[in-house]
Amino acid sequence: MFMGQRKAVGPASVFGSDVIVSGGLVFSAGAVGEDEQGKLVEGTVRDRTKAAMQVVERRLATVGLDWTDVVHVTIYLSKYEQDFAAFNQAYAEGLPKDVPPPVRICVGVAALYAGTDVELSVVAALRETAA
Amino acid sequence: MFMGQRKAVGPASVFGSDVIVSGGLVFSAGAVGEDEQGKLVEGTVRDRTKAAMQVVERRLATVGLDWTDVVHVTIYLSKYEQDFAAFNQAYAEGLPKDVPPPVRICVGVAALYAGTDVELSVVAALRETAA
Amino acid sequence: MFMGQRKAVGPASVFGSDVIVSGGLVFSAGAVGEDEQGKLVEGTVRDRTKAAMQVVERRLATVGLDWTDVVHVTIYLSKYEQDFAAFNQAYAEGLPKDVPPPVRICVGVAALYAGTDVELSVVAALRETAA
Repeated sequence: MFMGQRKAVGPASVFGSDVIVSGGLVFSAGAVGEDEQGKLVEGTVRDRTKAAMQVVERRLATVGLDWTDVVHVTIYLSKYEQDFAAFNQAYAEGLPKDVPPPVRICVGVAALYAGTDVELSVVAALRETAA
Repeated sequence: MFMGQRKAVGPASVFGSDVIVSGGLVFSAGAVGEDEQGKLVEGTVRDRTKAAMQVVERRLATVGLDWTDVVHVTIYLSKYEQDFAAFNQAYAEGLPKDVPPPVRICVGVAALYAGTDVELSVVAALRETAA
Repeated sequence: MFMGQRKAVGPASVFGSDVIVSGGLVFSAGAVGEDEQGKLVEGTVRDRTKAAMQVVERRLATVGLDWTDVVHVTIYLSKYEQDFAAFNQAYAEGLPKDVPPPVRICVGVAALYAGTDVELSVVAALRETAA
């Protein structure tokens, strides 16, 4: 079993890889509410929250995982007071049922990529066991 | 030894678990300056810093750890210029003596939960050894 | 092999250690664009981005690592709209060539240490393998 071996998975730009697996953990790049063509979804923060969760889901699928494997989520909102309730509802709806949810922290920031309103930074855990 | 097994500990709401243990690390939900009944503490950022550190302490105790096991702290302040000095003093006072402190990063954000002024995102490490 | 053993490396102040090694991961304290004497570098966000990346490089060297071992970077910009493009260019230039880059998330915040414009929170992975 390799500990600490850093392995990038999936597309990468010069700015960052989408997913890196290391030491039993899976790090995902910041996920905004974009569609599969990389275009920000129109509509509300609710729509973009669901889209961002789907971005995460697609990335986790590249390493055989899903939202049940997520351990930690940092949520950044650029219009916190205005959007917190709607974000929260969409997020809770998007989480898998019947498993304990990830731990999270949600903060209001001044600005996000392309002026968007919600971005997720997610860490998941591999399912492997080691003797 | 299970690597990557994700185990939630303690109370969870539909929005997030309090503590998740995975791969030798312990992830704690965002901790604000609230008392044991979940009510934000009155007073100053100093009071709420100490209360938030106590929230973390109670959560770590559920997995047999304490502040000497913390490896990383992200500190979010919603009134950074105004509160940084007072926060810093309260934080240093709350850290265990005679052990190297956790690494940290402290940033000023636009907004936090319920309009509060300080929130901590903490990662700790289990004490187990594995052959 | 020790799992979860928390080991601080290098200088520490009462506020935080520079580097902690735990469970195959290496956590680095928030890195701003300062020179080796701890003074913020004059010039532009580009200059301070390169300086911050060099701070990280020096810290990783204390545990035998370099930027090729970095798995995750959280980037905080206090003047996001104004500085994002210049930061991005300096960051991409500073990354090692010919290896997949770390995953990252970049957010605009309200304030950073000493009024600076860029700060990096970096996690790297040890190169060891374990049976």
